[in-house]
This record gives sequence, C-alpha cells and structure tokens, in this order.
Amino acid sequence: MTSPVGLHRVLAPAGVLPQAAERLDARPEVGADEVRIAVERLNLDAASFRQLWEKHGGDGDAVRAEVLEIVERRGKMHNPVTGSGGMLIGTVDEVGPDSPLGLRRGDRVATLVSLTLTPLRITGTAWDGRGEQVPCAGHAILFARSVAAVLPDDLDPRLSLAVLDVCGAPALTARVVRPGAAVAVLGAAGKSGSLSLAAAREAGAGRLVGVVRDAREAALLGGAGLADEVVVADARDPVAVAAAVGVPVDVTVVCVDVPGCEHGAILATAAGGTVVFFSMATSFAAAALGAEGLAADVTMLVGNGYVPGHADYALDLVRKVSSVRHLFEGRLSA
Amino acid sequence: MTSPVGLHRVLAPAGVLPQAAERLDARPEVGADEVRIAVERLNLDAASFRQLWEKHGGDGDAVRAEVLEIVERRGKMHNPVTGSGGMLIGTVDEVGPDSPLGLRRGDRVATLVSLTLTPLRITGTAWDGRGEQVPCAGHAILFARSVAAVLPDDLDPRLSLAVLDVCGAPALTARVVRPGAAVAVLGAAGKSGSLSLAAAREAGAGRLVGVVRDAREAALLGGAGLADEVVVADARDPVAVAAAVGVPVDVTVVCVDVPGCEHGAILATAAGGTVVFFSMATSFAAAALGAEGLAADVTMLVGNGYVPGHADYALDLVRKVSSVRHLFEGRLSA
Repeated sequence: MTSPVGLHRVLAPAGVLPQAAERLDARPEVGADEVRIAVERLNLDAASFRQLWEKHGGDGDAVRAEVLEIVERRGKMHNPVTGSGGMLIGTVDEVGPDSPLGLRRGDRVATLVSLTLTPLRITGTAWDGRGEQVPCAGHAILFARSVAAVLPDDLDPRLSLAVLDVCGAPALTARVVRPGAAVAVLGAAGKSGSLSLAAAREAGAGRLVGVVRDAREAALLGGAGLADEVVVADARDPVAVAAAVGVPVDVTVVCVDVPGCEHGAILATAAGGTVVFFSMATSFAAAALGAEGLAADVTMLVGNGYVPGHADYALDLVRKVSSVRHLFEGRLSA
Repeated sequence: MTSPVGLHRVLAPAGVLPQAAERLDARPEVGADEVRIAVERLNLDAASFRQLWEKHGGDGDAVRAEVLEIVERRGKMHNPVTGSGGMLIGTVDEVGPDSPLGLRRGDRVATLVSLTLTPLRITGTAWDGRGEQVPCAGHAILFARSVAAVLPDDLDPRLSLAVLDVCGAPALTARVVRPGAAVAVLGAAGKSGSLSLAAAREAGAGRLVGVVRDAREAALLGGAGLADEVVVADARDPVAVAAAVGVPVDVTVVCVDVPGCEHGAILATAAGGTVVFFSMATSFAAAALGAEGLAADVTMLVGNGYVPGHADYALDLVRKVSSVRHLFEGRLSA
C-alpha cells in the first residue's frame, strides 16, 4: 500500500514526510500510484550550488563528487546545509495503473515539486561540477500527490522552465482578483510579477498598478503595456509604496524577493482588501504584527506555490500575452 | 495635519512608520484625530522583561532605570534588543474632535496596538522593576488608526485583558468558517484555541475537532464541551496530526505557539479548504513550500490580529459561553 505523499519511501527517521526525511528509498520499482522518470538533467537550486561551490573553492570535481555522494546517501538531492534542492527534467518511463497525474510514457516533463522530497538515483553523469545544470542519467519517482508538467512542443524548453518556476503566482492572482478590482503588483517587472499582472488583467482587474524599483525597470515594464500605471518606489519603504500606489487598491501582490516589504503592501491595500505574499523573504511576524499595528482590515495570503492547473495556465498566458513572453525571452537572452 | 498612522509623531529617522522609528514625539497636545490616555499601568511584553531582567542579573532598580531611560529617549516603550513592547491600561483624558475611535473622556481602556508604536511619557512610578506589570503615571497617544478597547464593568479586568490579548483569533475564525464546515483547532485548550472553538461553533461549524498535546489538556477541554471530538497529537508531527483529525476538515486553525506546525495543519485540511495561522512561531517558507510539496490546494491565511469589532466579539463570547470563561478563570487562578 503506497502513501500519496510518499511516506512508504521514507527510510529514516520513521514517520516523517519525505521532505523532512534523512533518507528515502529510491528503488526503481513503482507502486500502483507512482510514476518513474528517466532523468535527463537536474536544475540545482541556486543557493545550494553556491554553497557547494564556495565550500570546495571552485573545484568542480569536488562539487560533483559531493552531489553524487548526497544523492547516493540520501536517496534525493537535498543539500543538508541549505536545505534546498531544485527541480529536474526527464522523460516518463513507467506509470503505475493508479497514478492520478495524467502522465503517459514518453512525456517530457519538468517536476514542480522540490528535489528535497523526490526519490532519485543517478547512474552516470558527464557534468563538470561547474554550474547548476547537471546533465545525468538515472531515475526519479513521483508520488500520487507530486506535481509534474509536460513540456510543450511549441515553446523553447528554457522559456517553459522559467515560466513553470513561478507558475503558482499567476494562478493564485487570477483566483483572488475579482472583475473590476484595483490591483497593485510589487516587483512587477520580474518573472512572477509580470505574469501576475497579466493574470490580473485576464481576471478582469480594473486599475492595474505596477510598482518597480528603478527607471530601467519602469521603462521595461512601461513598454510592455501590462499595467495601466507604472510607478517607481523602494518596496521596503512603506510610506513611499503607499504614496506611489495612491488610492489604496483591492488586491496587492508582493513579488519582491527582499525582506521588509510587508508594511508597504499592507498600507497600499484598502480596508477589506487582500495582500498575496509570493516572496520567500516574507516574514510571517512582520505581516501579522504590521497589520495589527496599522489596524488594517486586510486578508493576507501565504502564496501557495500549488494551484490546480497552474502550469497550463501560466504557459497559456505566455502564449497569449506576447509582451510577457518578450519580457521572459529578453531575460533568457541576457 | 496629522497622519492616521502617526507619521507626524516620528522624529527619527524621517519617513518611517512609528513602529520602525528610533524616536517618537510624545508631547501631550493632541491633534484633531488623536486621543490622550492617562496611563495607569504598562504590561511589558514577556520577552522584553526577561531580556532586561537577565541583562541586569535580577537587579530591579537597574531594570526600572533602563525602562525609564528607554521611554525617555525613544518616546515609546520599545525594547531595542527584543524589538517588542507590550500594552497599557489607562483612562481616556482628551479626545480630539476628529478621532474615529469612539472613545469618551473617562473611559477605562486597554490599548490593542503595541507599545512599540505608541507615543508615551512616564512622569512617575512606584514600580520595583521586579515584574512585567509597571504601575506608573504619565500619558500615551493614540492615532486615528490605533486600537483601544474599553474595559467592561461586568468582567474582572484581568479576565478582560487575557481575552483582549488574543481577540483577533476568534474574530477571524468566525469570518472564515461557513455554516456546516468541519473545523479543526490545533492547540485547542489554550487561550486563542478555546476562543476559536467557541467562535467556530457560533459561526455554525459542523464537525468540530480540538487537537491538544496531552491527556491533561484533553481532560480539560473534554470537560468544557467546546469540541465534538478532542484528540491528542503532537502538532509538530504532520502524520500524527492528520491521523488524529481523520477525515480532512474544511478549516484548520493553528493556535500552537511552537515552530513546525505548518505541515500537519496542511495535511489535515481538505482540498479547497483554509488554514489560518495564528501562531507567531509560524514559518512563512515552511507553509508555502509545504503546501507546494504536498500539492495541497489550500488557502493559507496570515492571522491578522486586527479585525473590526474583534474586542467586543471576544468579550461577548466569554460572556455567552460559560465553559470558555471557566477555562480562562481557571488559568488566571492557577
């Protein structure tokens, strides 16, 4: 009997979830609701690679040896220092009869759950240890509640990966924005920010404000035409953010990956409105105490990276909204 | 022209919110939308008092001197090491003509916004520096967007203060719970937990599950009759929490003030459900990444300590639901 969240693959310590486990069982035989992926490439988390690179003083052979040792020992690519993993690309090799993921043998996929909870075995690699991309052979296992996206044929795989990396943000934005709502996006020129603007527009937003950090980003975003107003403010300065946004909005979406953006987002939001925090730099206490201290009746959402259908929704946005696509392509070619 | 959030009282650095300020202007003259309180007692934040007590090796005179020095220098009781403040009790002394707070001269009130953002001057004290309660004379200023609750005549002030300390939790729970919804409360025997159970019941919850940590709490809560089921589980153990709750619920309310409760709450919640995090020990990243890793389509709310009407709502609950009142009174007499 397999567990949809992979408890049956946990070797130690007993009873924890795969992400919290020290060691996973990466045997290739799939359970009735599992899927096996023939791995083509790992995409290591940037923080994880940097830690290994610095630890070994830029010795690629030593970095490669440690990654292989971690995967061999833990049954997953879970950097014990940074706690982070990454994602992988591969081809579906076997699908258990009860898998609910809708994948078929031969599908080329990217996993959207972290490598820190994905059983993995590496059988060979030509990687030089000098970058985050790890071309390799081996296999990985998806559980019933894992998430993987089929890479579309009509988009450059690098573009698809960049979009899939942040696909929770536009999907949740679309769910929160009601027709006619005024919306502000902090960090609007970035990947998740520009997709959130496009999602808000498609959801019927009224006034749409993009907040960016400098004139360069303002020019970039203004040219794209994704927002009705593009304003410049330091997202960490609450008074400046509120002044730049002007009349408080119904929904504020925070896509700025630096600490200290909670109070500006709260101040920019009208009573009865909603703030969605997508930045991993968000402080729970700063948000909770900030709203209390400002007597702000706002609903504050933890940006959940999983929304059903999020991958297809984000890829479709990029197909339909050419200005978002151009922003992404510009970033990829930079 | 005064600012509703008190920007006009910030002396340094320029342009920040009062909570982030180094120094506030505590002059007694009130602006048109301000209120002055004649202070009767400060209730120092526990973490703040402990830091001062340990720093001074239990020398009450030195603790008192430092508190007075902080208030004199900063214009607010904002411990620079812990970053925390506390609350205060006093009597309304003057109300500006445009104040929206609904207070009247002579009202005995407790402030529900932190001392870290409240202009304060102390003119005398008989405090011995040996406890968190600081009897003193002086004044404090409330802004248009501050929050204060009038202490009711029919309840012991100690009971009112204990209830007001956590009054955001029941108000937000009542807002989130729909009639018929199945609800689980983690940390259900505590102050915010028991109030949240009572609020969920009043909002029309169907199945109501109280999760507690041990048999003693189970007996306490079981006797109160606030939940349909009382179950024992370590809130930090996701698998144990999910097993104890059984059929996933529509709303999970987290009132356990220890780190690591995010994944259990997510696992215990049905797809399409909501998790409300009231614990300040909540990790934003653990919640966001946990839901993503579990492919959990749950809405996750940052427990905002401010909901309009929260103080009256919580005090009314305690009046109406005698078992909640008994739990609080038992804690006060312990």
